[in-house]
Amino acid sequence: MQGTMMHRPLRIIDILIFAAEAYSDQGIISVRDEGDVHRITYPDILGRAAQLSQALESIGINRGDRVATLAWNGHRHFELYYGISGMGAVCHTINPRLAREQLLYIFNHAGDRALFVDPSLVQVIEAVQDSLPEDLVLIVMTDHEHMPESTLELLCYETLISTESRDYEWPHLPEDTAAGLCYTSGTTGNPKGALYSHRSTVLHAMMVPLGQTSSFRAGKRILPVVPLFHVNAWGLPYTAPLAGMTMVMPGRKLDGASLFTLMEAEQVYSAWGVPTVWAGLLTEIECQGRPPNGFSDLVVGGSAAPRSQIAAYEKLGITVNQCWGMTEMSPVGARGILPSSLQDADFDTRIDAKIGAGRRLFGVEFKITDDDGKRLAHDGESTGELFVRGSTVISSYFNDKDATDAAFDDDGWFGTGDVATLDAGGRLVVRDRAKDLVKSGGEWISSIDLENTAVSHPDIATCAVIAVPHPKWDERPVLVAVAAGDARPALDELHTFMSDQFAKWQLPDDIIFVEELPINATGKVSKLQLRKRMADYVHPDQRETSG
Amino acid sequence: MQGTMMHRPLRIIDILIFAAEAYSDQGIISVRDEGDVHRITYPDILGRAAQLSQALESIGINRGDRVATLAWNGHRHFELYYGISGMGAVCHTINPRLAREQLLYIFNHAGDRALFVDPSLVQVIEAVQDSLPEDLVLIVMTDHEHMPESTLELLCYETLISTESRDYEWPHLPEDTAAGLCYTSGTTGNPKGALYSHRSTVLHAMMVPLGQTSSFRAGKRILPVVPLFHVNAWGLPYTAPLAGMTMVMPGRKLDGASLFTLMEAEQVYSAWGVPTVWAGLLTEIECQGRPPNGFSDLVVGGSAAPRSQIAAYEKLGITVNQCWGMTEMSPVGARGILPSSLQDADFDTRIDAKIGAGRRLFGVEFKITDDDGKRLAHDGESTGELFVRGSTVISSYFNDKDATDAAFDDDGWFGTGDVATLDAGGRLVVRDRAKDLVKSGGEWISSIDLENTAVSHPDIATCAVIAVPHPKWDERPVLVAVAAGDARPALDELHTFMSDQFAKWQLPDDIIFVEELPINATGKVSKLQLRKRMADYVHPDQRETSG
Repeated sequence: MQGTMMHRPLRIIDILIFAAEAYSDQGIISVRDEGDVHRITYPDILGRAAQLSQALESIGINRGDRVATLAWNGHRHFELYYGISGMGAVCHTINPRLAREQLLYIFNHAGDRALFVDPSLVQVIEAVQDSLPEDLVLIVMTDHEHMPESTLELLCYETLISTESRDYEWPHLPEDTAAGLCYTSGTTGNPKGALYSHRSTVLHAMMVPLGQTSSFRAGKRILPVVPLFHVNAWGLPYTAPLAGMTMVMPGRKLDGASLFTLMEAEQVYSAWGVPTVWAGLLTEIECQGRPPNGFSDLVVGGSAAPRSQIAAYEKLGITVNQCWGMTEMSPVGARGILPSSLQDADFDTRIDAKIGAGRRLFGVEFKITDDDGKRLAHDGESTGELFVRGSTVISSYFNDKDATDAAFDDDGWFGTGDVATLDAGGRLVVRDRAKDLVKSGGEWISSIDLENTAVSHPDIATCAVIAVPHPKWDERPVLVAVAAGDARPALDELHTFMSDQFAKWQLPDDIIFVEELPINATGKVSKLQLRKRMADYVHPDQRETSG
Repeated sequence: MQGTMMHRPLRIIDILIFAAEAYSDQGIISVRDEGDVHRITYPDILGRAAQLSQALESIGINRGDRVATLAWNGHRHFELYYGISGMGAVCHTINPRLAREQLLYIFNHAGDRALFVDPSLVQVIEAVQDSLPEDLVLIVMTDHEHMPESTLELLCYETLISTESRDYEWPHLPEDTAAGLCYTSGTTGNPKGALYSHRSTVLHAMMVPLGQTSSFRAGKRILPVVPLFHVNAWGLPYTAPLAGMTMVMPGRKLDGASLFTLMEAEQVYSAWGVPTVWAGLLTEIECQGRPPNGFSDLVVGGSAAPRSQIAAYEKLGITVNQCWGMTEMSPVGARGILPSSLQDADFDTRIDAKIGAGRRLFGVEFKITDDDGKRLAHDGESTGELFVRGSTVISSYFNDKDATDAAFDDDGWFGTGDVATLDAGGRLVVRDRAKDLVKSGGEWISSIDLENTAVSHPDIATCAVIAVPHPKWDERPVLVAVAAGDARPALDELHTFMSDQFAKWQLPDDIIFVEELPINATGKVSKLQLRKRMADYVHPDQRETSG
């Protein structure tokens, strides 16, 4: 028997309509390509999104068409999220830091009909203009005055929307209608597309604040340092208006000093981004001797935050929580909230509890399995591949049967490629990317665990562990590090420093200091690049043999 | 084009599975019919719900069957919410305070196959036993030791579930599957059933905490004084575990002194119920000279809270928010959160902002229309009938074509029967039930507005305004009041007291003091009863004429 309830579709535009009514004094503050700081409220953004939807129709965009964006965080990018999906098309966000080949692969694979591009990124398109689809409409996200000179035929965003009405009859869309498209950064093989629906996006927007209550406060300001071109900025363009918060869009400059100045000027309450960004901000905070005024809540995702980073921010009175997810999961899958039973525990116990990815969001399910697909116990010890399921998880990659076949198990769960443990309370600890594990003498060594401990050494700023081939042990771990100052700790000293946490055979066999680590398009350390750079590296054992 | 996301059904049991994992130290504290205070955690409740589901199968309950409950707030009632819906049957909660005819009408209309009843309510069933369906299975919600003597054939809850396994393969259910059934208390005509689905219930559970953030804190305790037999206790049996809170179930005793003792003993953080209950608690707080320790958050619903009540609790440092809804809306439709712009306003401004029903939840839409169904402006002035739409609103009454035909407009919106205004910010003010409005000389007078002002007079404890027939004006308002102490303010004095807020023609023509006001089955003042009691009342004008 069915319930006799209305079945209204979950629609993305309804989030903005709601915010424009209930939180009409909140909106978006953007550091723009034009060089100014721009302010706009949700009611005005709703009007502009309506203009944009009609402008898209006027240039021939139909429902289901992919409309691409190549842009930093700013109010126009936010408008595109709602204007494109609101009229039934698909908002395809592209990472401007991708290599030329990946960029072209993605354009062609997605079949984009139009591309919205920030003025400062027009050169990225010019560089590949010979290989672009011929009928791709290019629109620069600025006004007439700031239109760049270009060899390309370019429309102007503000001119395009200016003639349209601010009222629009938003179409009724079934909730499974495609709304957003994002490609994984693709460290191996071609990029793969996750095609989000209105339903998955709205459910995700409701799930995240339920699990991360400290970060969401109506009337406060939230800073997505995570880019809007990267998995919907972890959903913040949906969760922030739903929760009645103003978003502060940082534009291009994400160094510690620029972020500090912006956060203090705009009274940012909660900030979200990857550990490397927060390492930069921490350096600036140490210079200034205090955190930005009003800064209370930090969410770290993308990679695991080192314990030392969590502790440093918590010592400043800033609540730190980790967020774990994947492009294929909309992206947030777990959040690292302190259990209420530990609210009054001592500092170290509380910091320890914040290590790891935390617990699944309501609406997402986890299982870990061995190599044969057999479920493993949730005992905090059994280590296996993490599989996930839920309405915010992809059921296939966009037009990519091979990638899809490789990613799902027979029961339809998505294989994350992460090697993890789960305890009885559902606490997820990601031990490593399956491909980053070091296999030594038949045992697995977690590169992440080694990195987290090594980086807490005062002389090490950042580091990465990679597996190098070894004739006897198959693989052995080697630490590649960036020094914090002039000191370069020796391997012996580091072994002593790490010996509490690791058995002797798990410790790295070598330490190599470099000027900087390679960073991929999403701001994470690229182990793929690092392995390429280290292609000629010879393990100490082999050096001795040949010496 | 469709997104390529998994489409997992929204299922009620997943809330409890989630809470059992993520908040395993939280659960239910119940003041029981047995006389004890009982404590159980969510993992144990999940195990018992699994036993219950299998016990239902063992007594022949199939998917879609209605299984009724007649019970106070307690852990077994909570288990029934999850155990019945979890195996695909429909949990039909019945109000034990209904009149015999209504009770029998509901039993027969719902077609209940089984009835779970609290020991103290067995007599309610005995009183109608001759008219019960013959094959109705009766189960008493207690253990073997506490089974009551009865002329009825009764099964024992604990005995029934004791032989079943705590593990159960919860069935896959499409999300539109019926899960819950609740009848409106039916002040006019027969009771009408709202048949909730898994989807509507889970969406409601996600929507309420999003809108009412101050009330939900993981690890804190929440008290539903609103009964579980009354529209799912406003959804708290779903929102509380989702938010990681322990529920304190107060059992039968809801007077101010009993509530004070329980709230203090169990450190209740947030309490939810109707204004009459909070008037009782306030009297006890005044006796004690302080609120219960730990009490921080009060949610008032069911009827509009008088301004004086909101102010009294806020003065004690307790955050008060109103919640507005209907059985037909799952039930919460709006919440009265203070806008962030008024967070630092002076006391009176903040209290003023808390009057009214507040703003719609995300997921619910409002419109007000005139008698011809034309939409009226959201300007805070235009007054019309409130219509609602959303995935948590009924699309029809359960097996009741006539009632359904009367309740929906041509566009499928549900007519609430409330007369209301909406302002540009979406702020809803319910002026009256359409049938409670006083129509005087072609103008409408709001009985609610008069009541709210009159009750703020220090000598008036509670009151109700009803319309009495008048030969010249059609209807005129008369105030029926319960005095706070020995003083009985005269009509003149009351007019002076109210003259700031009302025009002279809007003021009540008479004031009648009574010992108490009639209360209906859901704890609200019954104007239907009051009108019956006042059937012989003669308006002062007519008395003078005949005198």
